[in-house]
Amino acid sequence: MAVYTEVSDEDLLTFVAGYDIGEALSCKGIAEGVENSNFQLNTSSGTYILTLYEKRVNPDDLPFFLGLMDHLAAAGIPCPEPVRARDGKVLRELSGRPAAIISFLAGMWPRRITPEHCTGVGRGLAEFHLAGSDFGMGRNNDLSVQSWRGLLGRSIDRADEVKVGLGRDLEAELARLEADWPDDLPTGVIHADLFPDNVFFRSGHLSGIIDFYFACTDAYAYDIAICLNAWCFEPDGSFNITKARRLLGSYRKTRDLSEKELEALPLLARGAAMRFLLTRLYDWLNTPIDALVTRKDPLEYWRKLRFHGRVEGPEAYGLEV
Amino acid sequence: MAVYTEVSDEDLLTFVAGYDIGEALSCKGIAEGVENSNFQLNTSSGTYILTLYEKRVNPDDLPFFLGLMDHLAAAGIPCPEPVRARDGKVLRELSGRPAAIISFLAGMWPRRITPEHCTGVGRGLAEFHLAGSDFGMGRNNDLSVQSWRGLLGRSIDRADEVKVGLGRDLEAELARLEADWPDDLPTGVIHADLFPDNVFFRSGHLSGIIDFYFACTDAYAYDIAICLNAWCFEPDGSFNITKARRLLGSYRKTRDLSEKELEALPLLARGAAMRFLLTRLYDWLNTPIDALVTRKDPLEYWRKLRFHGRVEGPEAYGLEV
Repeated sequence: MAVYTEVSDEDLLTFVAGYDIGEALSCKGIAEGVENSNFQLNTSSGTYILTLYEKRVNPDDLPFFLGLMDHLAAAGIPCPEPVRARDGKVLRELSGRPAAIISFLAGMWPRRITPEHCTGVGRGLAEFHLAGSDFGMGRNNDLSVQSWRGLLGRSIDRADEVKVGLGRDLEAELARLEADWPDDLPTGVIHADLFPDNVFFRSGHLSGIIDFYFACTDAYAYDIAICLNAWCFEPDGSFNITKARRLLGSYRKTRDLSEKELEALPLLARGAAMRFLLTRLYDWLNTPIDALVTRKDPLEYWRKLRFHGRVEGPEAYGLEV
Repeated sequence: MAVYTEVSDEDLLTFVAGYDIGEALSCKGIAEGVENSNFQLNTSSGTYILTLYEKRVNPDDLPFFLGLMDHLAAAGIPCPEPVRARDGKVLRELSGRPAAIISFLAGMWPRRITPEHCTGVGRGLAEFHLAGSDFGMGRNNDLSVQSWRGLLGRSIDRADEVKVGLGRDLEAELARLEADWPDDLPTGVIHADLFPDNVFFRSGHLSGIIDFYFACTDAYAYDIAICLNAWCFEPDGSFNITKARRLLGSYRKTRDLSEKELEALPLLARGAAMRFLLTRLYDWLNTPIDALVTRKDPLEYWRKLRFHGRVEGPEAYGLEV
């Protein structure tokens, strides 16, 4: 669940009175999400999301995240817009935690992904990249290739509990990724976590992109690779080339990809799989089996990594290069 | 958290289309509550609560709970009103579970109880009792005195893990309660779980009573006793006689208490403490320490039970008898 900090009704009323958003009518904790405490806040002027930032978020990063949402919303991206308090600030404090109120987006995230969703997310991601290109701030991607060895080190002794030989295989794969990782691709602000539960649709159309708390400065094509993994594999583990073609084709209509970016895609997709594999592996090994949090299977991402390791080139993703 | 069943966006849209409440715009799981899966549902016509009934609720009881809400809402009690689907039904099925949509109530439950809240809840409870008196259905209270021995039997072997001697003390107390429990008090529909998190206030006034899933037919004064325990003790365990006086005084202005009911209050309050002590004790002994659910301290209710065991009569609750 995603409510770690309890907010008293009195504190909430005082907090909300600092904004021009009317009287607080209700405030219910939202069960989804794992990083922060999120509440659906109803006031006499409408619906909002109240977020209290918990310990896994570095407070120094919050101006970047909130500034980015502000910038993207102004550029027409359907993302939450931070609400300014009367004192002009978007980042304030509530119940001892940094806190912000952001606008509420209608729509629901898709549980069963269709090719149409992939068309929507491809275009949405490209528009996100273009709209973010003139954002004035930057943030290092602290979950990219240079951090993976450290992450692996936290789990390697127990990796074989998940699958015999996994530790050795990850070592070998990591060495290849470190050696080959490109550093000359077009770079800018990326979402870095654009999984289906962070994208809302309404009547088949993308209506919202949320959860900017992994956003950072990195290669645009790496963001695409994350989406290939998150949107184009079926629940049975098979790769759906139609979905990939839709996602990439739709992306390229808005922001074209250079030859270098296309050539790098299989490697970036292996790296994107490694990144989620490593955090899931750590969580898997360190979450009690009887905890109420659903542990995500790290091997799902090992299988994705292996798929990308076997492809010959970007044609495997349905592209005509 | 209170989302045990995941609802797909497609299933939800189909389900909501069966009602005259407009298009579903969003549906977020609510973190509070432990019995059922609750969602805050926003549609083009407003805000609703969607509840999926989970295994701890007996489906045979659902017509009683939903019928009661319907009856009370029609009588002006600020409680959720079940929304009828186009087919006239309030109880339907979603994602394999019985499900209902009920109206949304504005307000927040109080974290820090003031005497004013107790005035509000006393009056609200009396109005609830009066409004329910002509409700046509009944439901046995399966958590009253006749069930306590069985409940205690599930925990007695390990009760001393919580406090040395607790098992023996509970046995003795239970024998007294069973011997003295009254069966001739005015009876009707009671809420049976009117804790602060089930009562909403807005600008100091009671604006909502929710969570009818323990409601049953039992002595009205027993419902008052539950409230004395839930609203009139301070966090440090001390009994606040001002709050009790407000709660009882306010109740009696709307529905007066007979001498018999007044005399029974200390015993009923001991019994009410026993009931919550026993379910908390079981949960305490059977919830893993590292689970994300907050275990409620059963000893809090042992101390309340002991308090009521020492009082001389209803005067201890601030009443002038």
